[in-house]
Amino acid sequence: MSQSPSEFKAIGLLNLKDWPNAKSFSYKPYQARPQDVDIKIISCGICGSDLHASKGHWGDIPVPRAFGHEIVGEIVALGDEVDRSKYKIGQRVGVGAQCDSCGECYRCNNHKANCCRKGTHLYLHSYPDGTLVQGGYASHIRVNSRFAIPIPEGLASEDASPMLCGGITGFRPLLTYGVKKGTKVGVSGIGGIGHMTIMFAKALGAEVTAISRSNSKKALATQIGADHFVATNEEGFEEKYADTLDLIVNTASDFEPESFNKVTSMLKPDGRVTFITAPPVGTQISLEPMFYLINGYHIGGSAIGSPEEIEYMLKLAAEHNIKPMIETFDISEENVKKAWERVDKGDVRFRAVLTGYDKFFK
Amino acid sequence: MSQSPSEFKAIGLLNLKDWPNAKSFSYKPYQARPQDVDIKIISCGICGSDLHASKGHWGDIPVPRAFGHEIVGEIVALGDEVDRSKYKIGQRVGVGAQCDSCGECYRCNNHKANCCRKGTHLYLHSYPDGTLVQGGYASHIRVNSRFAIPIPEGLASEDASPMLCGGITGFRPLLTYGVKKGTKVGVSGIGGIGHMTIMFAKALGAEVTAISRSNSKKALATQIGADHFVATNEEGFEEKYADTLDLIVNTASDFEPESFNKVTSMLKPDGRVTFITAPPVGTQISLEPMFYLINGYHIGGSAIGSPEEIEYMLKLAAEHNIKPMIETFDISEENVKKAWERVDKGDVRFRAVLTGYDKFFK
Repeated sequence: MSQSPSEFKAIGLLNLKDWPNAKSFSYKPYQARPQDVDIKIISCGICGSDLHASKGHWGDIPVPRAFGHEIVGEIVALGDEVDRSKYKIGQRVGVGAQCDSCGECYRCNNHKANCCRKGTHLYLHSYPDGTLVQGGYASHIRVNSRFAIPIPEGLASEDASPMLCGGITGFRPLLTYGVKKGTKVGVSGIGGIGHMTIMFAKALGAEVTAISRSNSKKALATQIGADHFVATNEEGFEEKYADTLDLIVNTASDFEPESFNKVTSMLKPDGRVTFITAPPVGTQISLEPMFYLINGYHIGGSAIGSPEEIEYMLKLAAEHNIKPMIETFDISEENVKKAWERVDKGDVRFRAVLTGYDKFFK
Repeated sequence: MSQSPSEFKAIGLLNLKDWPNAKSFSYKPYQARPQDVDIKIISCGICGSDLHASKGHWGDIPVPRAFGHEIVGEIVALGDEVDRSKYKIGQRVGVGAQCDSCGECYRCNNHKANCCRKGTHLYLHSYPDGTLVQGGYASHIRVNSRFAIPIPEGLASEDASPMLCGGITGFRPLLTYGVKKGTKVGVSGIGGIGHMTIMFAKALGAEVTAISRSNSKKALATQIGADHFVATNEEGFEEKYADTLDLIVNTASDFEPESFNKVTSMLKPDGRVTFITAPPVGTQISLEPMFYLINGYHIGGSAIGSPEEIEYMLKLAAEHNIKPMIETFDISEENVKKAWERVDKGDVRFRAVLTGYDKFFK
């Protein structure tokens, strides 16, 4: 891996208690394997997960730690066993929340590596040699090439970044349902993930209903393609819009049964609701059995996506010229702090993306 | 409706506290409407619901009440608006748990009348004129012809009876999932409904895994067509059979999260579990969000079936010569009591069917 430095530069936390005061550090990547690629990073989205992990919501993960798992970069080194028909030096690739999996189980061998029970996820896990898995607020990253997804030419790096975790998370429920022309899809929660889900559902030919608490995002939802808009603070909406949807992708985090069931009531009989976020750790989701029995409803979850699904999503995005609503921040200690604080306040519409890597990591 | 008596004879409870001492009574049916048919009953299955309702588990329903909602009989009178191309005097038809619906809503107009919010169900509801809806332990029944399902010639009345509620309840989840040749279906709980679900899944071409607490029903499950058998008292079964099923139809009533999740773990990623019974009234089903997120699982319910679905099921049963395992009881006060008591003890393998109506209701 001759084109890679022996140490990668990064910005992150030297102590989880330091949040949001991100600091520079450098780290030695794990010993390269024949299947690995080294990537020089161009951009990285800031995902809500970055804040959960960096603020310690997910436990006291070892430091120093660089966060970020919506990475776009350029390949600078290829291991001996990397498929040369798919990857070459200088090629742009993306890395999402997952950077490795066992490669041997039923799930890995059936295009469901995202569901592998032994998956390795960015900035949460360690490699077998004990090296911490670092994220994308860094000059480079080394990953198993199976998780380096080619970025189509027409797609800008900063636009592709938020798709690699946020985008695929909302897109996958559309795929597993089999959304096609005419499917009536509801997207509940119009934020970073929800707004991309609306655009992807439209690209697949769906008739899309945006569902939000108030009318404040109605114009925006319409502008990005939603065919209908429902405000759940409108009295009786669940009766007015009953039996109008085949699928609801729930990107919101309110699982309180009464309000959740009202939204779910918009489904036709035998419809399905897929959630992609979890309520706070330790909280269960409570189902009223008769509500599901009588209506034939199903509820379930979906997490990120497989490499094949991400690749398909990126091609679809390029073909349909899908551009997420982003705000860019040139990477620096100060700007990571600033971006974290603004994302934390819900003040970025809708996804923050770190750019300008060349200027900082000289 | 000249061929019908002005009063119908029945066996039921004059007081819910009398259970299991069923008594004869007669009742005057509601004023016939142009869409109605009168049916002279030939056989009626005894469903678990009959016991719940008659024992007062579902509240203090008005009496006198005849139970039973797995009715096969012969048409003896047709209203003026009944479709003569479909129904004629002397024809055998079946009536399940539902005998009417609004006929006007989205659900009624889209082959989902079983999900109509204004459905009328046997022996639980009243007609608008206040007449109690009676069940099938009776000489006759009057119903909206939309809910009188033609019985194919090759299917014996006593075999068709248990399909009209129990059978369709387990069959519908197969239909809504889209089970076809090669779909890997698990049927959890090998009882009255489960054993029919196994046979129907096989008829649709599925590879079927019977799931039961112990090996005691293994030979039986194999005999009725199950390709595989899993006993959940086998240590580690959830790992051994992980990722083997597309769909589980849960006919069992254990929703305790630990054991339920172990069975659910047999699903491939993105698999689905459909329950068809509810835990005790007031009990919620509790979902561990991460379990559903990580595996892409969906869980939901299904109740009975639409007239179209019942008709399709009966044709499939006739084509595949499906015969449920039944025990017949000639209808009488004494035998209703005896059958109820035996069903209550779980002592009938697998469905009790009342027959011999001609002898009792002379």
